Amino acid sequence: MNDPDNAAAVAETVMAWADELGKISEDPDCLTRTYLTPEHRQAVELVQSWMEESGMTTRLDAVGNMVGRYEGSEPGLPTLLFGSHLDTVRDAGQYDGALGVLLAAACVGVLHRAGERLPFAIDIVGFAEEEGVRFRSTLIGSSAVAGTLQDSDLTLTDEDGVTVAEAMHDFGLDPERVGDAAYKPDDVLAYVEAHIEQGPVLENAGLAVGAVTAIAGISRFHVTITGVAGHAGTVPMGLRQDALAAAAECVLAVETVCTETQGMVGTVGRLDVSPGADNVIPGAVKFGIDMRSGDDAVRAQAVDDVLSRLRNICERRGLPIDIVKTHENPSTTCAPWLRDRIADAIETETATRHLLPSGAGHDAMALTGLADVAMLFLRCTGGISHNPDEAVATDDVACALRVLLRFIRDFQPKAD
Amino acid sequence: MNDPDNAAAVAETVMAWADELGKISEDPDCLTRTYLTPEHRQAVELVQSWMEESGMTTRLDAVGNMVGRYEGSEPGLPTLLFGSHLDTVRDAGQYDGALGVLLAAACVGVLHRAGERLPFAIDIVGFAEEEGVRFRSTLIGSSAVAGTLQDSDLTLTDEDGVTVAEAMHDFGLDPERVGDAAYKPDDVLAYVEAHIEQGPVLENAGLAVGAVTAIAGISRFHVTITGVAGHAGTVPMGLRQDALAAAAECVLAVETVCTETQGMVGTVGRLDVSPGADNVIPGAVKFGIDMRSGDDAVRAQAVDDVLSRLRNICERRGLPIDIVKTHENPSTTCAPWLRDRIADAIETETATRHLLPSGAGHDAMALTGLADVAMLFLRCTGGISHNPDEAVATDDVACALRVLLRFIRDFQPKAD
Repeated sequence: MNDPDNAAAVAETVMAWADELGKISEDPDCLTRTYLTPEHRQAVELVQSWMEESGMTTRLDAVGNMVGRYEGSEPGLPTLLFGSHLDTVRDAGQYDGALGVLLAAACVGVLHRAGERLPFAIDIVGFAEEEGVRFRSTLIGSSAVAGTLQDSDLTLTDEDGVTVAEAMHDFGLDPERVGDAAYKPDDVLAYVEAHIEQGPVLENAGLAVGAVTAIAGISRFHVTITGVAGHAGTVPMGLRQDALAAAAECVLAVETVCTETQGMVGTVGRLDVSPGADNVIPGAVKFGIDMRSGDDAVRAQAVDDVLSRLRNICERRGLPIDIVKTHENPSTTCAPWLRDRIADAIETETATRHLLPSGAGHDAMALTGLADVAMLFLRCTGGISHNPDEAVATDDVACALRVLLRFIRDFQPKAD
Repeated sequence: MNDPDNAAAVAETVMAWADELGKISEDPDCLTRTYLTPEHRQAVELVQSWMEESGMTTRLDAVGNMVGRYEGSEPGLPTLLFGSHLDTVRDAGQYDGALGVLLAAACVGVLHRAGERLPFAIDIVGFAEEEGVRFRSTLIGSSAVAGTLQDSDLTLTDEDGVTVAEAMHDFGLDPERVGDAAYKPDDVLAYVEAHIEQGPVLENAGLAVGAVTAIAGISRFHVTITGVAGHAGTVPMGLRQDALAAAAECVLAVETVCTETQGMVGTVGRLDVSPGADNVIPGAVKFGIDMRSGDDAVRAQAVDDVLSRLRNICERRGLPIDIVKTHENPSTTCAPWLRDRIADAIETETATRHLLPSGAGHDAMALTGLADVAMLFLRCTGGISHNPDEAVATDDVACALRVLLRFIRDFQPKAD
């Protein structure tokens, strides 16, 4: 393969960086790295050293994001912004988030070593907090960059009752100045995030990378079905009000509707049976429903269909059902012009053109308030993520490097 | 109503006895009375006092059962044996078990006060351990009376590691002599147990009492379905191996087969989802199946049908399923001649004749090794049992007293 940028070797470096960064953990037995901890500091300082090796100037911003900048053909030009997050879930894999930051830094390193300057700057942000593990609120780092962090976010507390503001102070940050982290919209040409897919679509299609169409919107519900508990031996079938049998029909209704609706996914991931003994007819079942689509109208219609089926099931069985919406988030559309530039670069480098939705949330969601956004997904083994078994092939990382370099070199701001 | 035995007033006494006995509990907040505890002793001594008031001689047998004897027209005649249990589940109702002992004692009291002696003796056993709470093994008291208690039963341990033998010793019993509790088959004409139905059949039929046809046989299974856990947003429906969706089909298969099969009940009462988070596709589900019928052949065929459906469901979905039989117990048939004498007494006293199976287990199961058995069921409110809300109407207790007295006075041993 023609490899003028030596992407194969650069990919080895990225993999080595990911290994080294993946060793920085609060937990000696697994990878856990949360916001405003000593390991957060270790991680940003390590990434800082790699950004500087790659020819970037660096700074820790007001909320703890690590920001690198590679000036364009002259200082102070508007910037093409890259980023992803450096925090992790508990017992994490080492590629979720981190790989997007390292890939962008490695691309800049290639440009830097070749002495290439572009008609725009490149900024890379290693976001400090995306997963929401410590303070149970996601996207703090990217919201700050987008200028949408709320004062109320600073009063969130961790398990020990420490607020975000207190933790910032202990970390050496001034919570009064979080607004300084925000970019001005006029300074940002676009936001691009590379990330492992966290799903099996690319692997199933035999492809290394794909362009993301949209980040799915989510509807979540908490459902309670109330039956009548009874002795498993003494209540004839015709006299039962079995909450689990009703819930089983509901689980299948979610599966049926989402299978029959193009672009939907729907999951019952949690289901609790009371009292939960082999010889007792279930008196109550509580379960969660998670429904997602890149198209909000499709999601709304599927949700209506599911909820109506659930009510019909319980009405037919004579059981009360209580449905509470616990979460709703609209989809984030990747800007078509920008998504197409990513897809063009993929097609040029791989001779295929694959677009896919993102079912998981990403920093790009927060960045839409600042700029048009797009994402590049990389295949991950078995679609596994949020798990120590998370894995990415070095060849796929090399492919992503070639695609990103092509995208950067061909990039032209949106014509207004 | 013609009430020569003043059964209505005697029923009030039985209800008062049940209230008093129901206050003897290991737990100040609810009724729990387990084997070989101080509360076991308090309970048997209280029952002993009522048996003696009713004209019986009493003894604590070798395993802690309280035995009362009312001689017939001459001492040492074969006996008509009545019984039920004095131990309870945790957080129990006060009628399960106890009511059968108290009803029998009250009947003897009526005979005693009238100076009636019969051509047979009446023995009543308040069994010490039926529920199996403390040592996780049921029917210890009744097995000892039937002569089928195994030496290995004495080595069972409670939560603190105390064996049955050690607990017997501490209670003042000699574990070497448990064989002394056994009756000789020639001395027992029949065994009859009155018990609350613990189900809604009598209440649904508007009847106070019914004669039991059989105690259901049970098959229990522990099922594990293994899927592939995954992100609820990133795995398309067509690429999922959702263990809960498969399990939901299985739950409905159990319900369908048992609804379509006359005389069957089947329950999935316990179902655990792993990992059990709203945003994770279930990777594994474990659940229990409990299937019962008074007819062992019917049960065997329904079990075959259910297991075959479960395997087909999982084969179609491509998920491994593991099915382990955890328990199997054949049904206990109430002896037709004896059951008919109970039913005759019911018909004479109530002008109805209702027979029903027992889905729950009873001491009568253990007694089949010793004698023909039959049972009289009493309506309980809402079919509720194993619950502090367990309730029985005083009028129904009076009805049961009249039926039992009729049965005793009309009783003739089986003609061989």
